[in-house]
Amino acid sequence: MPRLVDHQVRRRQITSAVRRVIVEGGLEAVTFQSVAAEAGISVRLIQYYFGTKREFLLATHRSVMEDAGARFMKRWAALGDDATPREAISALLNELLPLDDPRREEAIVLGVFNMAAITGQGITSEETLAAPRALVSILADQLRRAQYPEASADPDLDAELVTVAVGGLAQGMLAGFATAQSAVDLVDHLLDRVLGTNDDHRKPPLR
Amino acid sequence: MPRLVDHQVRRRQITSAVRRVIVEGGLEAVTFQSVAAEAGISVRLIQYYFGTKREFLLATHRSVMEDAGARFMKRWAALGDDATPREAISALLNELLPLDDPRREEAIVLGVFNMAAITGQGITSEETLAAPRALVSILADQLRRAQYPEASADPDLDAELVTVAVGGLAQGMLAGFATAQSAVDLVDHLLDRVLGTNDDHRKPPLR
Repeated sequence: MPRLVDHQVRRRQITSAVRRVIVEGGLEAVTFQSVAAEAGISVRLIQYYFGTKREFLLATHRSVMEDAGARFMKRWAALGDDATPREAISALLNELLPLDDPRREEAIVLGVFNMAAITGQGITSEETLAAPRALVSILADQLRRAQYPEASADPDLDAELVTVAVGGLAQGMLAGFATAQSAVDLVDHLLDRVLGTNDDHRKPPLR
Repeated sequence: MPRLVDHQVRRRQITSAVRRVIVEGGLEAVTFQSVAAEAGISVRLIQYYFGTKREFLLATHRSVMEDAGARFMKRWAALGDDATPREAISALLNELLPLDDPRREEAIVLGVFNMAAITGQGITSEETLAAPRALVSILADQLRRAQYPEASADPDLDAELVTVAVGGLAQGMLAGFATAQSAVDLVDHLLDRVLGTNDDHRKPPLR
């Protein structure tokens, strides 16, 4: 019987292989056989850890959400107390864009799962929606800090706007509609439009 | 030998069935058998019109792009010369959102094809990119009219921003992140952010 740590390493080996198969050929390409070949292990070993294709697909989705969430929280923790709301928002949004290979892989896998949820392939979209809803909440908090004390601001609506824009931009980058540099510029422009270009509006209130 | 009109009707019958199969189960669900069953015709008849699955998939993609394009142009033509840039932009963007069943079906099919192009399933993304690029160009023209003579405006960047935001919003609606009403409100808010809420800025220059 393998030790617990081996179990985790093995499961990770399998879900990492599933990601690569999805990136290369979509959900259609995912079978026990293709994942075994990609991971360099036997179909029987995959079956030992995951009884069905659905099980290892859900584990793969979870692993991507966890990786992205952990990276996001690390970036968030690294910001420091003196970051302005604009700096904080900008750092977080750039973390969500597929600017390097791991984030590109994550974005593709999440996009594929998202479409699978929409087309009724048995993967519920509830967990897919949890992440953007959490993002809206975090952004709204930062926008509230940034725009204080402007009474006319609508931080919740702005937070939704920023979330859909960055989601569309991430998908657009995958499709080749935007390059890394033009995406970063566009996020900056988005924040200009939402926060204004006046530096006075970017300073946080005393905490 | 069937007449030409029958050919067109038949091809349409098949691509419409392909759309419904994709909406219900993604590209994975698309086979000659499932499309034949959905269309209520024989596999042989589909094979008479389309030699391969790839052929009827590309025809389906084209049919969706044509339908969306035709509806878009019809809306554009209906606007009339006295529409302000904001009215024109708002009408066009709302036309692109999946606010009713036909547009929802189109958006799902395009989203699925988009992810298929990204995951290298042999459907090039060049034609997928043509539509957003055309939209950016149309929006930039309208923004130029709207913001004239403000020298500080950057209509091209704003047009890209609006395009990615509406793309993300459309996908978000499919996933249940936004309702029809909240989507329409968000488009309005987006235009406030890009054009300003001052009515003076919305008036077109003399033409």
